[in-house]
Amino acid sequence: MLSTMQDTPLSIAQLLRHGSTIHGTAEVVTWTDAGARRRSYADVGRRCAQLAHALRGLGVTGDERVGTFMWNNAEHLEAYLAIPSMGAVLHTLNIRLFPEQLVFVANHGEDHAIIVDPTLVPLLNPQLAQMETVKHVIVTGDSADGVDAPEGVQVHAYEQLIADQPTDFDWPDVDERSAAAMCYTSGTTGDPKGVAYSHRSIFMHSMQVCMTDGPALKQGDRALAVVPQFHAMSWGLPYAAFMIGASLIMPDRFLQPEPLAALIAAEKPNFSAAVPTIWQGLHQYLEANPQDISFMKDVLIGGSAVPPSLMHTFEEDHGVQVLHAWGMTETSPLGSVARPPAGTEGEERWRYRYTQGRFPASVQARLVDDLGEVVPNDGNSVGELEVRGPWITGSYYGVDAPEKFQDGWLRTGDVGTITPDGYLTLTDRTKDIIKSGGEWISSVDLENAVMGHPDVIEAAVIGIADAKWDERPLVAVVLREGSDAKVEDLQEFLSDKVAKWQLPENWTVINEVPKTSVGKFDKKRLRSQYTDGDLEVTRI
Amino acid sequence: MLSTMQDTPLSIAQLLRHGSTIHGTAEVVTWTDAGARRRSYADVGRRCAQLAHALRGLGVTGDERVGTFMWNNAEHLEAYLAIPSMGAVLHTLNIRLFPEQLVFVANHGEDHAIIVDPTLVPLLNPQLAQMETVKHVIVTGDSADGVDAPEGVQVHAYEQLIADQPTDFDWPDVDERSAAAMCYTSGTTGDPKGVAYSHRSIFMHSMQVCMTDGPALKQGDRALAVVPQFHAMSWGLPYAAFMIGASLIMPDRFLQPEPLAALIAAEKPNFSAAVPTIWQGLHQYLEANPQDISFMKDVLIGGSAVPPSLMHTFEEDHGVQVLHAWGMTETSPLGSVARPPAGTEGEERWRYRYTQGRFPASVQARLVDDLGEVVPNDGNSVGELEVRGPWITGSYYGVDAPEKFQDGWLRTGDVGTITPDGYLTLTDRTKDIIKSGGEWISSVDLENAVMGHPDVIEAAVIGIADAKWDERPLVAVVLREGSDAKVEDLQEFLSDKVAKWQLPENWTVINEVPKTSVGKFDKKRLRSQYTDGDLEVTRI
Repeated sequence: MLSTMQDTPLSIAQLLRHGSTIHGTAEVVTWTDAGARRRSYADVGRRCAQLAHALRGLGVTGDERVGTFMWNNAEHLEAYLAIPSMGAVLHTLNIRLFPEQLVFVANHGEDHAIIVDPTLVPLLNPQLAQMETVKHVIVTGDSADGVDAPEGVQVHAYEQLIADQPTDFDWPDVDERSAAAMCYTSGTTGDPKGVAYSHRSIFMHSMQVCMTDGPALKQGDRALAVVPQFHAMSWGLPYAAFMIGASLIMPDRFLQPEPLAALIAAEKPNFSAAVPTIWQGLHQYLEANPQDISFMKDVLIGGSAVPPSLMHTFEEDHGVQVLHAWGMTETSPLGSVARPPAGTEGEERWRYRYTQGRFPASVQARLVDDLGEVVPNDGNSVGELEVRGPWITGSYYGVDAPEKFQDGWLRTGDVGTITPDGYLTLTDRTKDIIKSGGEWISSVDLENAVMGHPDVIEAAVIGIADAKWDERPLVAVVLREGSDAKVEDLQEFLSDKVAKWQLPENWTVINEVPKTSVGKFDKKRLRSQYTDGDLEVTRI
Repeated sequence: MLSTMQDTPLSIAQLLRHGSTIHGTAEVVTWTDAGARRRSYADVGRRCAQLAHALRGLGVTGDERVGTFMWNNAEHLEAYLAIPSMGAVLHTLNIRLFPEQLVFVANHGEDHAIIVDPTLVPLLNPQLAQMETVKHVIVTGDSADGVDAPEGVQVHAYEQLIADQPTDFDWPDVDERSAAAMCYTSGTTGDPKGVAYSHRSIFMHSMQVCMTDGPALKQGDRALAVVPQFHAMSWGLPYAAFMIGASLIMPDRFLQPEPLAALIAAEKPNFSAAVPTIWQGLHQYLEANPQDISFMKDVLIGGSAVPPSLMHTFEEDHGVQVLHAWGMTETSPLGSVARPPAGTEGEERWRYRYTQGRFPASVQARLVDDLGEVVPNDGNSVGELEVRGPWITGSYYGVDAPEKFQDGWLRTGDVGTITPDGYLTLTDRTKDIIKSGGEWISSVDLENAVMGHPDVIEAAVIGIADAKWDERPLVAVVLREGSDAKVEDLQEFLSDKVAKWQLPENWTVINEVPKTSVGKFDKKRLRSQYTDGDLEVTRI
């Protein structure tokens, strides 16, 4: 029996219409070297129509892809809204990809045009000639100078291109399951793989970002989106903010602690989102340059596990509550959010907050062991996390990857436990688990324990070959400037924090943990450094 | 270009799975004449499986309808979850329908079985013989005594029926657009018309109930669902509570002010939902029997316009914030919610709260004039409200009603204005507007103004024929016991509140405003009373 409900599709165009009228006075604030520039959502709505007309004029029809090579700013927000609303597909290009990966994704996605920020033109120029389908380069601002356009590629200045276009657009109807935006994962192995979000998945994900068991973004919030728009859709904040009427504060290229602190002081966000390293850096800066940030009530942190010490520091030193979350490009990206159950207090509450949190009703999660069997959610059984739901990818764009899926569930590559009431604790990546004498040692648990030491800024743990135990952990630590801590002190510090047989005997002090293009620990590189003999290892 | 997202359907089964595991310790509390009985959501999950097995055993297959003739209680919650999850369709029967309407809807919906509460058996009995498709009557509790079963109808006791059934069920996959539940509108003209909600519409509506621009129901809330489960799905609270892990407090048949006050004192809900008359009654009771209810932070009121005086009373006398909302059976039912913009204060904030509120991103709204033209959202232009969205009905079950729709939009029959930032103010029903000398007078505005008088308990305004002006308002008022207010005083009271030409000259004092089966003012009956000469009208 069919329902009598209307069959209206969920669409970005509806989100754009809603945000630019009902929430027309909300604003997107973009940081510049001369302070903030502001634009109301009503203006964003008009400029989206102009951009869509302009892109049609450049031959963008049907589901053609339009790339963006941009920081977080007002024009990137316009691209987010206008491109899917006109039926085309937004392709966010990660500016931190290696050159050959960047060329690969632009060609694989068959981008017809690329919108680029002036400061990023030099980074794009060397690759342009190899981007085979790109016909237009649009530089944000008033000038298109500086683009080394290959033959057959036209260059435009964004403001001139849209200036004389009509300020309304008859947004077409779309199938809600058609692609709205795509994003390639910056996999450490093989070519990047594309995830194509649908209008439906983005719309529903935006609702979740505004739900009480999610980040609970609300009308009137001032949301600082530090997490890049080229990385997992800035965790869905631009769309969710437009849906709910929260203003967006965009740092553009000013992601270093000092300008970020200035932006925070000037614009007083009450909500923010970024990976741990950003907050780690900001915290160090604030220690040296004290500044009140307590108006920033909630900070969503994900992308990699948040060290408990960082959560305590933010709450106790700065009055800012860290909301730990888990997700990945393939999951839109939320994921689980660590809201403790109502009524929990003190240590119990903290224990819930240290976890990766629990999933909303829309996302199912299960743990699967080495043999492909589902293990119970008993808080002890360890397995690989698999997820399912309307905003979880079920495949990759134009490439088979059967090893990433099982019976329609996405295999996340993350390993951990789930409690009966649904709280996920990740202990490792499947590939980073250290297999020592038939037992598993979590590299992440060790890292967190080491990072609890006051002199340790960062710590990364990898498994290294061991004649007796197959593998044993090697701890690479970055020490605070001026620290005279010895690795023996650090091992001693761990002695009451981890099981005796897990206590690492191999240590190396380094200047910085190598990072991937999105700021995660690059353990692959650390492993190469070790096997190449580039690390000075102390064996205690 | 298709997205790569998974194609998992939104379903009640997923909601049931989620709530009964992740939120297994939340509870449904049912009030009885001996206090509360409690059941955890984990138990509800197991009993839903048992109920589904039992219903399969009674021949409920495919999309067959199972009716409920019940108060708000734990078993009704189980029916809400189990029946759609097994692929069948829940049909909530309104216990306040007139007998012939009840027979009509059970036959029109072709109910295969009916679950009934023991206290409602006497109300169902006289109609059973005329219900042509009903094969089974299931009485909640341990006994099926008292049912006058016609030949061919089997009678069962709910607890015995489910007792030996397995506590898990392999819930089938469903098409998310298939019907999950149906509810007939208690139209004052013609036969009741059925609305069939889909799995998709219920799932998305539940998300909205937990969104920050909606009622914002959250994990750990204790939600008192006074609004009946047989009336517009109890405004979606049972499903939303199960989705988010809010406990449900169910009053069963104890809807009178005194037991309701006792239930509130015992169970301390922090959230509630009901029509204005319930709160009006509770307020009067609390005036005579003072009791602290300030823990009940938010009260959602809709169903008919909330008099501002009631909102002030609850906030100022009881410390309870009223959240004004608009919806109807055809809209699942939310609708708009009157959350004022962040940052508004004092009188400005109140002005926003008096309105019917604004719609979420999922629901589009527009105003249409007599000629079918869309009028602007300028806060002044008046038109009939039309709505569109994934949980708005696009037709009625098994009956054509083209006059209720326009270009795919639902015509609501409500008349009002919308501000540029989306706030809806309803001034009347299309059929209740008073057309006086070519101008429109809103019956609702007049009613609210009259109800602001301290001696007036209720006021209803209808248009009556007038030789000079075509129509003029007649005000029917119910005065507080012992009041010696004269209608001349009431007219005088209005003199600085409405335009001079709107000032009503026709008044009648009555004992009670006639109500429809769902507790709304029944102006049709009031008009008949007037034309039949049953009202004593004073002309000033």
